Amino acid sequence: MQHLLGLADLSPQEIEGILRTAAMIKAGDLDVRGSLRGRTVVTLFFEPSTRTRISFELAARRMEAQVIHFDVGTSSVVKGESLLDTILTLEAMGVDLLVVRHQASGAAHFIARHTRCAVVNAGDGMHEHPTQGLLDLLTIQERKGRIAGLRVAIVGDILHSRVARSDLFGLTKLGAEVTLCGPSTLLPRDRPGQGIWALQGVRVTSSLDEALEGADVVIALRLQRERQQAGLIPSFGEYTRFWGIDASRLSRCKPDVLVMHPGPMNLGVEILPSAAYAPNSVVTAQVTNGVYVRMAVLYHLLAKSVDKENLVGAHARGDLLWWPSGGSPLPVGHH
Amino acid sequence: MQHLLGLADLSPQEIEGILRTAAMIKAGDLDVRGSLRGRTVVTLFFEPSTRTRISFELAARRMEAQVIHFDVGTSSVVKGESLLDTILTLEAMGVDLLVVRHQASGAAHFIARHTRCAVVNAGDGMHEHPTQGLLDLLTIQERKGRIAGLRVAIVGDILHSRVARSDLFGLTKLGAEVTLCGPSTLLPRDRPGQGIWALQGVRVTSSLDEALEGADVVIALRLQRERQQAGLIPSFGEYTRFWGIDASRLSRCKPDVLVMHPGPMNLGVEILPSAAYAPNSVVTAQVTNGVYVRMAVLYHLLAKSVDKENLVGAHARGDLLWWPSGGSPLPVGHH
Amino acid sequence: MQHLLGLADLSPQEIEGILRTAAMIKAGDLDVRGSLRGRTVVTLFFEPSTRTRISFELAARRMEAQVIHFDVGTSSVVKGESLLDTILTLEAMGVDLLVVRHQASGAAHFIARHTRCAVVNAGDGMHEHPTQGLLDLLTIQERKGRIAGLRVAIVGDILHSRVARSDLFGLTKLGAEVTLCGPSTLLPRDRPGQGIWALQGVRVTSSLDEALEGADVVIALRLQRERQQAGLIPSFGEYTRFWGIDASRLSRCKPDVLVMHPGPMNLGVEILPSAAYAPNSVVTAQVTNGVYVRMAVLYHLLAKSVDKENLVGAHARGDLLWWPSGGSPLPVGHH
Repeated sequence: MQHLLGLADLSPQEIEGILRTAAMIKAGDLDVRGSLRGRTVVTLFFEPSTRTRISFELAARRMEAQVIHFDVGTSSVVKGESLLDTILTLEAMGVDLLVVRHQASGAAHFIARHTRCAVVNAGDGMHEHPTQGLLDLLTIQERKGRIAGLRVAIVGDILHSRVARSDLFGLTKLGAEVTLCGPSTLLPRDRPGQGIWALQGVRVTSSLDEALEGADVVIALRLQRERQQAGLIPSFGEYTRFWGIDASRLSRCKPDVLVMHPGPMNLGVEILPSAAYAPNSVVTAQVTNGVYVRMAVLYHLLAKSVDKENLVGAHARGDLLWWPSGGSPLPVGHH
Repeated sequence: MQHLLGLADLSPQEIEGILRTAAMIKAGDLDVRGSLRGRTVVTLFFEPSTRTRISFELAARRMEAQVIHFDVGTSSVVKGESLLDTILTLEAMGVDLLVVRHQASGAAHFIARHTRCAVVNAGDGMHEHPTQGLLDLLTIQERKGRIAGLRVAIVGDILHSRVARSDLFGLTKLGAEVTLCGPSTLLPRDRPGQGIWALQGVRVTSSLDEALEGADVVIALRLQRERQQAGLIPSFGEYTRFWGIDASRLSRCKPDVLVMHPGPMNLGVEILPSAAYAPNSVVTAQVTNGVYVRMAVLYHLLAKSVDKENLVGAHARGDLLWWPSGGSPLPVGHH
Repeated sequence: MQHLLGLADLSPQEIEGILRTAAMIKAGDLDVRGSLRGRTVVTLFFEPSTRTRISFELAARRMEAQVIHFDVGTSSVVKGESLLDTILTLEAMGVDLLVVRHQASGAAHFIARHTRCAVVNAGDGMHEHPTQGLLDLLTIQERKGRIAGLRVAIVGDILHSRVARSDLFGLTKLGAEVTLCGPSTLLPRDRPGQGIWALQGVRVTSSLDEALEGADVVIALRLQRERQQAGLIPSFGEYTRFWGIDASRLSRCKPDVLVMHPGPMNLGVEILPSAAYAPNSVVTAQVTNGVYVRMAVLYHLLAKSVDKENLVGAHARGDLLWWPSGGSPLPVGHH
């Protein structure tokens, strides 16, 4: 693995490898301190996102990488420099890895094609946000002990959501059944048999009741304000009345349903406090796992081969007892 | 001590403990390098303040903490995330300590009630700025050899000044006599017997001559531009004529009066060059001590217990000869 | 050497010393890791420049200095603090070195006169940008094996360019012949015998053909958009037609001419893709060398004397075989 651009590109084994590494770092079974010493990571954010940037920065610095934030607002990009020249410049400065967030779908792939640096996609337009997908998988695996066979409802603005897409690819590759649910104006417009319809185990519906029925996991998506301006929803209040996730709606799900949200939450819009702070809400666990997943990704992409040998050994030992807090190991080879 | 929210909350002994630690770090009698290794500090600034942020950042990094600046201007807070969710997110990422500056009085207390992170108040509205109070105390102690019994005049916009409040609490707890002085529109509006009137050793006056008479220390406060817009002062020029501190006005004080200012100075408004750069001005000494005071606070709040044992030992040895540059030790137990 | 303010202030030997150190760091013959441990560097940028800031920050952090970025946009400078007080504040915090970029010519000299910190000029108005000059020299020396006797054409907005000035001083001090070329509205206005006319080996012309004839090196300067608004050029398109550097124009130069640009490039304005990405373009090599030159400057200014002994020893050994990748040593004493 040279880059992490999207979960669509990864095999189930590669996804499980990253999750396993993340879980081992979290459990203290794999010591990665100092493993990025001498390496330079740049967070190159064309869209602001403090939360994701800080998570990557903490991950990289705990492994002792040099981390530099490239603030596009005050950069040469403003002076008319092309994206390509910005990338070539960073590469020429000896940067090892670029964490890229960009408003254009495909920006991370474009950059990866033109640089020798490793590239991690931290969200590109409506395309993918793979570390969010991975942290959601890790959180579900941790709490449920498995991914395969679970029923997962993803609710909200499916059409524009890179989180939904990365979740969808990751979950179906590991054997979950996914129901995508939202107002018809915010559902994917692929033709039958194409796009997401070609994926195994995916259902799409505009009925929230149907989506929540018997669900093991509910993922509420953030609603962007610009959707109302674009006329895709009548109003925020209307949206909440029909699609807002609260405790009473969760009663249709399995009793131990996990409530998830990628954050930042619009409390009172797509999710209500009774669900957001419910006992089975794992919203803050997702944030915690985000740091571990990003450490695992950086480790896989950047750590030296001598460090990687430790990883292989640790995974081998871990096959016996690796999953922390009593969860069971990922069902290797179920797909 | 779990947080540092205000000097009003601390006992004289706690204040002296921090000052003593700061003085020992400065004198090289307590080695704190590496004592925050593996700890993460976030500077969470809702109001811009480069000066205070850099001082905290330098303090934390010299002790080898990871320091992350949370730039609220480009953050999810803008996207509508609640303050509480921002805090829970940072806590979930494994942050150990939050340095918080916020325009609302009480924001630091609110945050401290809702997080397991340690919280240091770096200024909240018109309430407190405790590390500024501590650095002022350290500077006075260093130059005068004592706090108790000194006459301190604080001049300017007392009403809105969190610096004045933290200075007031710290100075009176350590036994100084404080005169608060400014135009009547900028004086506290507490009723007699309440608020600051309940503190021992405090006088309030609109006569600058009276305030400066025989003073050991003069603290000039920064005048905010918005005070004029609010109609609280007629003009900056008028303010300077009546309240600006210059060399001639200082002649009413003791000959060795210390001139202090929390910075940044409006030169020519609340303080004039003849005072700001006078031989007994300690404005830059305040800045230097700010870094040491913040190191001491972080050390008290975050260093591991094994490090704390060194602190106890050092304080014990220091009881004999701890105060640097010939000053005398703080008069323990005078209050 | 206490500061680096401009190449006009340095002797040829001092320039060669920095270049030699940079080349040795790059070749791995001088190990500078950890040599700035415990030192604090502040990047104080009054004009935005992500590229230069990141280059300095990488250089300093690879030597393990603490690096703090002073974001003037959100700083006390906005609150009316004077430049002098900002500098005194940083000095009082224990900062060792200031990297300063400022829109006013002479700002770095002003700051250096008022502080005990070391000062590195990262560009001041239309005056100098000495590390850019040094990295250009290093790149030419690396590729051509010498500076003395080379014919160098600098093309574009000579009048406003601090890059042109630093290149000019550096190149002529090391014995190159420099032709400055651009539209007459953008040429220096010194009187004959004064200013740049007093330098040895300098020619000024408005004929691009004449400037390029037999050139060993062509440096295309960035054209600022405000030049058109000021009426100094008719339009960007017109400028490109007469002064844009492309492959066909380069045919007048020596066959192995180096194409250089300080970046960021306005592709299609002062330089066209056929020149910018030509085989003999060294634009990205310039960026790489920028980091090494800045490491060398920081090392000369900040490393402790015990480290400097290593430098002297390394230079002595290097006299025999120091220049990397087959280039020949700088011709010591040719001037």
